[in-house]
Amino acid sequence: MELLDKLNWRYAAKAMNGQKVPQEKIDNIIEAARLAPTSSGLQPFEIYVITNQEIKEKIKAVAWNQSVVADCSHLLVFAAWDTYTAERINTMFDLTNKIRGFENEGWENYRHMLLNSYPQKDAEENFQHAAKQAYIAFSQSITAAAFEGVDATPIEGFDPAAVDEILGLRAKGLRSAVLLPLGYRQEDKDWLAKLVKVRKSTEDLVTVID
Amino acid sequence: MELLDKLNWRYAAKAMNGQKVPQEKIDNIIEAARLAPTSSGLQPFEIYVITNQEIKEKIKAVAWNQSVVADCSHLLVFAAWDTYTAERINTMFDLTNKIRGFENEGWENYRHMLLNSYPQKDAEENFQHAAKQAYIAFSQSITAAAFEGVDATPIEGFDPAAVDEILGLRAKGLRSAVLLPLGYRQEDKDWLAKLVKVRKSTEDLVTVID
Repeated sequence: MELLDKLNWRYAAKAMNGQKVPQEKIDNIIEAARLAPTSSGLQPFEIYVITNQEIKEKIKAVAWNQSVVADCSHLLVFAAWDTYTAERINTMFDLTNKIRGFENEGWENYRHMLLNSYPQKDAEENFQHAAKQAYIAFSQSITAAAFEGVDATPIEGFDPAAVDEILGLRAKGLRSAVLLPLGYRQEDKDWLAKLVKVRKSTEDLVTVID
Repeated sequence: MELLDKLNWRYAAKAMNGQKVPQEKIDNIIEAARLAPTSSGLQPFEIYVITNQEIKEKIKAVAWNQSVVADCSHLLVFAAWDTYTAERINTMFDLTNKIRGFENEGWENYRHMLLNSYPQKDAEENFQHAAKQAYIAFSQSITAAAFEGVDATPIEGFDPAAVDEILGLRAKGLRSAVLLPLGYRQEDKDWLAKLVKVRKSTEDLVTVID
């Protein structure tokens, strides 16, 4: 299965060579994230695509100085909604009605159920939920990068508040959730490049109930 | 790009026809989850693969009676660790040393950093972190299903405590995070099957900083 070949090829490159990734590949990697399924279709996240070297260096400084953050070609920052608001929920339901060209009673009832639920919840709980949706998209971008022969290094090791500050995310109702530097591996400087991939066995992962 | 074609093909089927998915396809869908990257490589989740009709019906009853939960071929339950413990962290680091055949000082230092961090944190915070890793794998299973021509319906709408109870998860240090029924769409009974996919525009999703 081609997908499994791609997933076996990929790894979290710890050194990148600075080579630029063509825009078409970046577009496909973003498109995979855009197509990701999310809870109630709300897509409660945005993606910052950073090539500006100064900004990448600033983020590297608050990301344990991991070299790939600055040496990547494009740094993706997945930023989730800081909470679910009525306005945000309505925007996505209105978009759905506009694209599909009709209103549907069941769908409108569902809208009102969400309006009577999410906005009343604790913002932190809502952010955690939104961040999980961002992770679904983030994962699809990782897979898309592998299909493009582009290295992608998932990074949670950073100070989210500092990244929020650098990018001005909080003023936009967003909080940084996870980073994804994209670029090309530099094997001779990468301690991980030649090590075998480690995963727990299928037996330890799976329980069958039949 | 083939991946984007597959992601455009897939949707969250709201009705399935009960047809059985061949074991080889299920194996590939699970393998994609097994290969998913996770924070520090800890893979803090397990997957329950349920074909038992009685158990599927019980879970359906605590999942808003969504028909696909019972009418699917295989119901995957992604269950995340309820917290990070020293034992769990050591198991994964020991496995890494065993598979790679050597110990490395930097890697051992990293193990001790994690041992001095995760186990001291609040269990709920750790579970939320583990659940996000499960979502990365969950997303790769969704993509793998699309490559196999298998429908997969992401489901967050269920009572996690009730599912934990049905499967006895808490006694194993697990909590249900998300469900993924796998099967084949039944278009004539599925209100969503013929509706156009709705996603926000790339312009609304992406901010470029160059």
